[in-house]
Amino acid sequence: MAHVSIIGTGNMGQAIASVVSKGGNTVELFGSADKAQQLTGEIVVLAVPYPAVAQVIAERGDQLAGKVVVDITNPLNFETFDSLVVPADGSATAEIAAALPESRVLKAFNTTFAATVASGTVGDAPTTVAIAGDDADAKALLAGVVSAGGLRTFDAGALSRARELEALGFLQLTLAVGEKITWTGGFALV
Amino acid sequence: MAHVSIIGTGNMGQAIASVVSKGGNTVELFGSADKAQQLTGEIVVLAVPYPAVAQVIAERGDQLAGKVVVDITNPLNFETFDSLVVPADGSATAEIAAALPESRVLKAFNTTFAATVASGTVGDAPTTVAIAGDDADAKALLAGVVSAGGLRTFDAGALSRARELEALGFLQLTLAVGEKITWTGGFALV
Repeated sequence: MAHVSIIGTGNMGQAIASVVSKGGNTVELFGSADKAQQLTGEIVVLAVPYPAVAQVIAERGDQLAGKVVVDITNPLNFETFDSLVVPADGSATAEIAAALPESRVLKAFNTTFAATVASGTVGDAPTTVAIAGDDADAKALLAGVVSAGGLRTFDAGALSRARELEALGFLQLTLAVGEKITWTGGFALV
Repeated sequence: MAHVSIIGTGNMGQAIASVVSKGGNTVELFGSADKAQQLTGEIVVLAVPYPAVAQVIAERGDQLAGKVVVDITNPLNFETFDSLVVPADGSATAEIAAALPESRVLKAFNTTFAATVASGTVGDAPTTVAIAGDDADAKALLAGVVSAGGLRTFDAGALSRARELEALGFLQLTLAVGEKITWTGGFALV
């Protein structure tokens, strides 16, 4: 049994918490009022918007040492919806991994809208959670929790593939905002 | 009725030719032995691997003026399968557009494997062809030809979105080569 801490109580944090519970694993959710509360999960999901990640790291960096840290962000410029705010050859995940050298950092859940995590379907297809990272054990631990909760997973490769996952998340967000797809749809891996 | 020239007689060239014909539009296919033959289509699909594009432009740049030119490439480093060979903040399409200032250049078909173009399905889902470009009329012309041939299309946005489409194509290729998906599957837009 795995114990998962989720920082962020928005749509994504709640949907991921529900998946964790459904699989028989335990979960604790932290909102912004819970800053003083210690994280106890071996997996910690940073379910906050990209601009809020730096503050979470500043506040909880020490507590994240030794843990599997899951970055779910899409680091878009939300004013223009026309670019990412991370370097073109990098990713939010690479930045987070650099800031947390004692953690095993994974990218996951940035290519699945909250509704598709909650329902288990993207349109009529099953929801598949992409996971990228450099630590095979960490990826297997997260994949186990996610698949126990009823969602498929796929191993997208090394941490460097977070760049492509963020491109995919970016594209998918622009399509949803442009009403070319719905928030219950998107890219399904079949 | 549109007339389409396809340069490249590989799997993708043939699959795209079949879609064009199926929609009641006309198509001419050019192999490497047809260098002397003039292009007559108002749409020209560069259905050659990325490393061969520069030579096509060198040979046929003048003929491509005034035409809608469709780049379908995935500019991967095929030795490592770990990076693209275009600048991180650019795309093959942006390079081609810069080399062909008199053409209206589009990105399309780089996120659909040949088998999914030929069959019209990605797994059990319909195949959807992503089209990006800066010229709305050119995108509409290509989308009309593709949808007449029985495939869905989606407008991925401006030419700058080719970068994200190439990231998606890259990721999809690494998954197929790693046998995590089949060549009849991939990312379906639902």
